[in-house]
Amino acid sequence: MPDPQHVELVPTAWNRAFEKTSDHLLPTLARWHRQPQRLVAFAPDEHSYFGVRPGPARDAIAALPGLAWGRGDEFVLDFGLHMVGFVSFRLACVGVNMDAPCRLRLTFGESPLDVTMSMDAVDTWISTAWLPDEVVNVDLCPQLVALPRRYSFRFLRVQVLDTSPMFKVAFSDIRCECVSAVSPERELDAVVFDNPLLRDIDHASISTLRDCMQTVFEDGPRRDRRLWSGDLRLQALANYSTLRDFGLVKRCIYQFAAVVREDGSLPACIFEKPTLAPSADYIVDYDALFSAIVLDYVVASGDVAAGHELWPTVLNCVKRSLSHVNPETNIFETERSKHWKFLDWAPTLDRNAGSHGVLVYCLKAVNKLAAVLDKESPHLEMVSKMTAAATQFVSKDNLFISGPEAQVSYASAAWLVLAEVLPTDVARTALLNTIAHPDAVKPLTPYLWHHICDALVTVGSFEKCLEIIDDYWGGMIRAGADTFWECYDPKDPRASPYGDVRNNSFCHAWSCTPTYLLRGKLLDAAGGKVTGKVTMGQLDDRWVQRSIS
Amino acid sequence: MPDPQHVELVPTAWNRAFEKTSDHLLPTLARWHRQPQRLVAFAPDEHSYFGVRPGPARDAIAALPGLAWGRGDEFVLDFGLHMVGFVSFRLACVGVNMDAPCRLRLTFGESPLDVTMSMDAVDTWISTAWLPDEVVNVDLCPQLVALPRRYSFRFLRVQVLDTSPMFKVAFSDIRCECVSAVSPERELDAVVFDNPLLRDIDHASISTLRDCMQTVFEDGPRRDRRLWSGDLRLQALANYSTLRDFGLVKRCIYQFAAVVREDGSLPACIFEKPTLAPSADYIVDYDALFSAIVLDYVVASGDVAAGHELWPTVLNCVKRSLSHVNPETNIFETERSKHWKFLDWAPTLDRNAGSHGVLVYCLKAVNKLAAVLDKESPHLEMVSKMTAAATQFVSKDNLFISGPEAQVSYASAAWLVLAEVLPTDVARTALLNTIAHPDAVKPLTPYLWHHICDALVTVGSFEKCLEIIDDYWGGMIRAGADTFWECYDPKDPRASPYGDVRNNSFCHAWSCTPTYLLRGKLLDAAGGKVTGKVTMGQLDDRWVQRSIS
Repeated sequence: MPDPQHVELVPTAWNRAFEKTSDHLLPTLARWHRQPQRLVAFAPDEHSYFGVRPGPARDAIAALPGLAWGRGDEFVLDFGLHMVGFVSFRLACVGVNMDAPCRLRLTFGESPLDVTMSMDAVDTWISTAWLPDEVVNVDLCPQLVALPRRYSFRFLRVQVLDTSPMFKVAFSDIRCECVSAVSPERELDAVVFDNPLLRDIDHASISTLRDCMQTVFEDGPRRDRRLWSGDLRLQALANYSTLRDFGLVKRCIYQFAAVVREDGSLPACIFEKPTLAPSADYIVDYDALFSAIVLDYVVASGDVAAGHELWPTVLNCVKRSLSHVNPETNIFETERSKHWKFLDWAPTLDRNAGSHGVLVYCLKAVNKLAAVLDKESPHLEMVSKMTAAATQFVSKDNLFISGPEAQVSYASAAWLVLAEVLPTDVARTALLNTIAHPDAVKPLTPYLWHHICDALVTVGSFEKCLEIIDDYWGGMIRAGADTFWECYDPKDPRASPYGDVRNNSFCHAWSCTPTYLLRGKLLDAAGGKVTGKVTMGQLDDRWVQRSIS
Repeated sequence: MPDPQHVELVPTAWNRAFEKTSDHLLPTLARWHRQPQRLVAFAPDEHSYFGVRPGPARDAIAALPGLAWGRGDEFVLDFGLHMVGFVSFRLACVGVNMDAPCRLRLTFGESPLDVTMSMDAVDTWISTAWLPDEVVNVDLCPQLVALPRRYSFRFLRVQVLDTSPMFKVAFSDIRCECVSAVSPERELDAVVFDNPLLRDIDHASISTLRDCMQTVFEDGPRRDRRLWSGDLRLQALANYSTLRDFGLVKRCIYQFAAVVREDGSLPACIFEKPTLAPSADYIVDYDALFSAIVLDYVVASGDVAAGHELWPTVLNCVKRSLSHVNPETNIFETERSKHWKFLDWAPTLDRNAGSHGVLVYCLKAVNKLAAVLDKESPHLEMVSKMTAAATQFVSKDNLFISGPEAQVSYASAAWLVLAEVLPTDVARTALLNTIAHPDAVKPLTPYLWHHICDALVTVGSFEKCLEIIDDYWGGMIRAGADTFWECYDPKDPRASPYGDVRNNSFCHAWSCTPTYLLRGKLLDAAGGKVTGKVTMGQLDDRWVQRSIS
């Protein structure tokens, strides 16, 4: 999610003690193997979201080592679930002599489009170096070909660009050494739901979370492979409901706190390698939401000591956002700075009301953390003023509005509800009205859809929330998702914030939250029951059976 | 030089003792470093053979580490001489953050065409996997990028396929770890010639030889990187006049003898890896010429013991060729088998007379080896008969002719002269007449041009030989060659036996023989003088100075 327009070069005021704390929390990644489950063929299917439907290819996977492939041949492997890891295979020469190198193109597919569209001529404003294809030349066979880079995929398209008239090649022992901070032995609650779709949504949420959990919480293991604070907050929430890895959350929190900037603000993103460094990306709302990340962590983990250590950082992280508040009106005014206010990718979105909501939400988090730490709440007065002022974001006909044009949007609604600036019934009515409004600016990202869902839960609209989860995350499941996506437009399978769907990420942290809601406040409404314990490996095996049956 | 039409699947009658002898002669390769000498730009130039002229680029090579390159940028490095080895470089990020991988395309150029034409859409009947380009993705900088494959090149084209809007990359410490069985410390005679072109030709011959000398005598270090017996014979001759590495010749001879086939014939080519194996390629003339390889080796090295060990193999290697001789006429008839008779790539060449010459040449080699070994010469009678019969290959107007159409060709002339089947003055006249004949089928390969030159030397036509060396090998030097090529058509810089010049080899063993002639029988005629000793490293340094000045 990088945007060169929003780069800020503010010097870093390193906190090396926090860096050391984060270093000590570096996890040893679990490593395990997965093999392809089948050779897969994609048939055109106008009823499928992507327009193609995966099914078994002519040959069984067991036959693969006996099949020979020459110039122009290709096949696609289906591993049956989304994975992150390192791929290797044995390549053998079939023929009289291997009298030339073998040139292969390998394309790692998170979606059917990745392995059915060409990766040539991709028009995207972010780097085409993200595209998941590799050209590999092998001089000698038999050879164990072990690719040094990490990939994120379910499907592997293998194109034999060339052999020679004298030989073909055969593939065997294809495997992925999967990596995650979460081992297949990790236990979590087994939860069943009346509606099997919800079980799939819950599972895909957890898979998304697990595949993003590496040495940091990555936003997406395919792209950008980095820690973003906006994603981290949602991952941490989903993690507390499921895998409960507090160490990794703490590590990431301390990484942000270690690279605090000289004015006390926090970057939106961290580079872990080659050495810890702040990204130049800055987002006002992400900065302020650090307070909520710390509060959530301290409450979930009971690690009050960390709360005390981080208290100065938390106090500072809301300052830039606060500087946008008009001291006369107590209203957040986006135009008071050129800093990036994100909320969602929707380009026409008026961000005044939403940003107002985010700031109140964060100031309340600071106050709550103060209470947990037995400190005086620093923002009681400002919360009170901004709460009073927020009434202007509700129109006479009970819609959430923002800006001079009184724009109606989901973003304004979500954050003003989450900020609890209105009585619950007023908030519920305005939220449902906004959602029902035909001209409301809708979310483009799962990130904002999450906040809509969280807002609906906040006001007790469980059925509407489940309806959206069914419609939006369920839509991805029906489209064949194993993990949830960076971007999902039900009407356009090729939609992309980057100009080309081939640069989208199909396992993206900010879409992993349904499990947090389904296993949390929605559990009863969703008919969910905890039936015992289950390991990640068992969940994976069950998913593979479902995928290829 | 593989051709699937000429594959023969004859079982191998392994001689494991010979294999062991060859294994013990495995050389330890010398390794040394070379750095790029300049950034080079290619300007269109209609007077240059390739249509482009290399010259210094805008920036000096010393400035390279300070230059930043982003999407679509590219540069070409000139190492100043042809090398074989492993390339590495340091890649650094220039910019705010390296927020995406960097995708590079590296193209290793033996000729200016390699680095000025695209490597896309190459139409060739041999494998496009030979093409000298690699696509490399680098996830993290700074990084030492060390490519695992061996390349053969002088120029390195670096194309930055993509970085991101947030960063560019810089290159430093670019180097090639050169490899050869011949170390830069190897001493050889320093020879000067009146004509500086001859000195360059001598040098490029030796460079070609050295770059092909790896763990075997390769035909070309770019393509096919393998031991072919036809190439080996010429390499061994050039080697005896210069580098005098008898061990590597012996190793290769024993490799062929180790993979003798059940009928006593020898394959045309050897695979050294993964384990020693015969190629399925078979060529009648290459098989018989093994006798000359052994004779030359025993005479040059004095290793008579090897001659004795190899005697049965030598006796057998001419048998298939002998089976083509009509017992009534004592004439070699190509149509008596479908086995491949090579002589040259020229497609219309009638190979009867030339093959007759090759066989007589080889039978004489067997007889000479017998004499060295104090054995009875086995082919005196057949040589006598075939010599008598050979008169029919000379026309009334003193031209060498072949086949029912009395085709005049250089191939027939070269081999009938080398076979010494005619009195010297008759042979000389017919040879010169044939060369002067406007319709004579001319050579396509340096391999046959060598035999023409060797034939001219055999009949004492030193000036004509020097004229051809000046014209043919000198033509490559004038075109910018550092090493001599697999294929050189003075009229067509894009000529290729494979359909596309981008799959040609520009360092090819069978064109390395001018040094053998210039330092041998031509020395006086060429005005050559041995002035002392020089090392390969000194020769290289001198060449680099010449290249970039």
